[in-house]
Amino acid sequence: MSEADQMIKQVVLSHNDLPTAWYNIVPDLPARVPPSLHPQTLEPLTPDDLLPLLPSGIVEQEFSEQRWIEIPDQVRELYQIWRPSPMYRATRLERALDTPAKIYFKYEGVSPAGSHKPNTAVPQAYYAVRDGVKRLTSETGAGQWGSALSFAGALFGLEVTVYMVRASYNQKPYRKMLMHTWGATVFSSPTDRTEAGRAVLAADPDSPGSIGIAISEAVQDALSRDDTRFALGSISNNVLLHQTVIGLEAKKQLEIFGDYPDVVIGCVGGGSGYAGLSYPFISDMLTGTRTGTRFVAVEPDACPSLTRGTYAYDYPDTASLGPVLPMYTLGHGFMPAPIHAGGLRHHGSSPTMGILVEHGHIRPRSYSQNEVFDAAVRFARTEGFVMAPESAHAIRGAIDEALAAKETGEQRVILTHVSGHGHFDMAAYELFLAGTLEDHVPTSQQIEKALADLPDAKVSA
Amino acid sequence: MSEADQMIKQVVLSHNDLPTAWYNIVPDLPARVPPSLHPQTLEPLTPDDLLPLLPSGIVEQEFSEQRWIEIPDQVRELYQIWRPSPMYRATRLERALDTPAKIYFKYEGVSPAGSHKPNTAVPQAYYAVRDGVKRLTSETGAGQWGSALSFAGALFGLEVTVYMVRASYNQKPYRKMLMHTWGATVFSSPTDRTEAGRAVLAADPDSPGSIGIAISEAVQDALSRDDTRFALGSISNNVLLHQTVIGLEAKKQLEIFGDYPDVVIGCVGGGSGYAGLSYPFISDMLTGTRTGTRFVAVEPDACPSLTRGTYAYDYPDTASLGPVLPMYTLGHGFMPAPIHAGGLRHHGSSPTMGILVEHGHIRPRSYSQNEVFDAAVRFARTEGFVMAPESAHAIRGAIDEALAAKETGEQRVILTHVSGHGHFDMAAYELFLAGTLEDHVPTSQQIEKALADLPDAKVSA
Repeated sequence: MSEADQMIKQVVLSHNDLPTAWYNIVPDLPARVPPSLHPQTLEPLTPDDLLPLLPSGIVEQEFSEQRWIEIPDQVRELYQIWRPSPMYRATRLERALDTPAKIYFKYEGVSPAGSHKPNTAVPQAYYAVRDGVKRLTSETGAGQWGSALSFAGALFGLEVTVYMVRASYNQKPYRKMLMHTWGATVFSSPTDRTEAGRAVLAADPDSPGSIGIAISEAVQDALSRDDTRFALGSISNNVLLHQTVIGLEAKKQLEIFGDYPDVVIGCVGGGSGYAGLSYPFISDMLTGTRTGTRFVAVEPDACPSLTRGTYAYDYPDTASLGPVLPMYTLGHGFMPAPIHAGGLRHHGSSPTMGILVEHGHIRPRSYSQNEVFDAAVRFARTEGFVMAPESAHAIRGAIDEALAAKETGEQRVILTHVSGHGHFDMAAYELFLAGTLEDHVPTSQQIEKALADLPDAKVSA
Repeated sequence: MSEADQMIKQVVLSHNDLPTAWYNIVPDLPARVPPSLHPQTLEPLTPDDLLPLLPSGIVEQEFSEQRWIEIPDQVRELYQIWRPSPMYRATRLERALDTPAKIYFKYEGVSPAGSHKPNTAVPQAYYAVRDGVKRLTSETGAGQWGSALSFAGALFGLEVTVYMVRASYNQKPYRKMLMHTWGATVFSSPTDRTEAGRAVLAADPDSPGSIGIAISEAVQDALSRDDTRFALGSISNNVLLHQTVIGLEAKKQLEIFGDYPDVVIGCVGGGSGYAGLSYPFISDMLTGTRTGTRFVAVEPDACPSLTRGTYAYDYPDTASLGPVLPMYTLGHGFMPAPIHAGGLRHHGSSPTMGILVEHGHIRPRSYSQNEVFDAAVRFARTEGFVMAPESAHAIRGAIDEALAAKETGEQRVILTHVSGHGHFDMAAYELFLAGTLEDHVPTSQQIEKALADLPDAKVSA
């Protein structure tokens, strides 16, 4: 890009540039994904095991080894409500950091639900309706996923029931109201509506809840009615592949900017947002099309599954109801502190990401709450957007990459994402500005204790 | 547009399509705008009168009779953070209404501050910095304008002090926190920091405040320091002309859709958002390029300046500090009920809009709170976006236009706007969904009483 074009901050694509297929990384991975296991028998899971829980189209994708999966026309039409999403160069942040690096960020806060989550909520609702399903249940941490599913449910005329982690339910009342506006029903989890919830409440009536508990509740609720299925917001491979529209668009947009990333850095809870951004670029590396790009996954100190967890088989939920997955985990009994990046409070992360971390292709890093809010405020005051605390992990990482490039004088090209806006997280910003946002770091004993309870199945090397 | 293209919902423009000049309607109006008057002498206002209060570039534009005013490069660069904004066809709402009408909406909720207000906040901050100003003060109703100015202040390194109407300050705590995140100082108005505020509090310590009171406070604060100027979020012609980027973009986008509006309908408080959308189309009518388009301005029943007010000289603020303006007004002593569309709680509206209403070119209409929230929820559940209560007035109007077209079977093309998102207005949605949102209609006596206090100057016919 010439000097004359330096003032270009944003590249938008038209509806014609919307991807026509999702990218599935499974066939390109450096090793086969170990099979998921049945939660009771610990035998390899079959599609039939999942059909009572998930729409058939989703089950098919979950087991798919096809590289490209066509996006249905109706889903592409609905994607147009917020896609293609904009890509920005953070010129003002670069100047403030006085770095030779270029920072590009893909902005997903433009969706009606405020994050990347509708990228998968809409296809999940689509496949549910195709099967004649009337209702979807789900968990939500910070409320981003629950909002996305409520939005998708409204578009398809589906009932939606959301189990929202109590810590977030109390921190973010507006998120609940947003879901109501789209017609969803929202419960503060743990509830007394499910066996899983009642068991948690019996042990600790003041439990702040966790994504793992909320998943257990939503699964039990879904299994209790024939017309109901469950929708998961992250971790599953079908969710991750839906999210690749982000990275596929980003690639086209970076081409228009005339760049290719030296580092792709993003935030990871279950891993779907970062997979969506990075997998189309990791594909270039795995297939030998490109070399030299680094991939960095950022998580909170308080829930450090990739940096301090173990690569092992574990349940995705607290009550051990979900399929046993090969993943980086802190143990399904791990109870993360009620930090404001509620969307990153899950003890495990996605199986495909586990393989990429295990093989050294993705390198994890973690930050404290204060470190990430500091980055978020700096970003708001230079680039304008006020982001979700989850996204702030990515931006903190990008800032550190840019500062490292300044040390060496390197013209590093950094690609990152702002996975959602922070309009429902203002109370946390206010605490940070007042200097009263607490940091939480789990003790090694806490993690060891949770890991002691892993299911009796080893991931083969 | 062919049947094959029917699935196109959104037209995005690239940075190359950003307007290079703002449109000033003044030279094209059917009558000269009567001069604004000095608040004490009631003599025609001169540029020198305004220089202690406003940046010189803004004063120049306020008196300009040039049709096109070039947008400075730095402002265009910053506009790229959220502009060109998207234009949608509300296909799903059309289907739900079963109408032959086409509904297009320009969406301004993509800006970091969440509304169209940064379109003028950024140039106002730009011209302030050009004069060496260090601080800007302003009023805000719902908080949209205060947020926009705080955002612009952060981009330019300007201090920002916002007087936020108490009713909104209490209804929308997150708005205040958003302004803090951009580094602004926010006070609940009326305050005891200014003479104007103290006078109101002395008469009524529980005053919910009003935009008129907050303007008085911000003006007094600005005049108290040499390094400080005042920034107004609506009403002034310079503000309205900045907003025409909306309509200029909309015209290009409608061309791509292959349409021209039969009706342009929007919400009006001070009038800047609707002027921004409509003036480039009204220009076509005034200059004879196009005929047959109707222009409809929608306001709340609770603050009906265009539908029930008088066209007269009046002060823009409660304490009679601002320039006396020829406008539709309910009287500067009118105290609107604390409705949730706080941005529409001003007793008057813009002088140029006054002329257009007086000449029958713009027709006003009003709705109750429940009518507009009903439209907003219907929109959220079809088109996805959750909008500000202000914007819901526009959408309610657009829905009624579409339903009228259904009666007659007419293929009417409706252009409207969603001037901002409703992420900070969720409490009002929750009240509406619970059926406990109150409606407010002022009595004729209330309006008569306020109008009795007009300044002693007549608008010549």
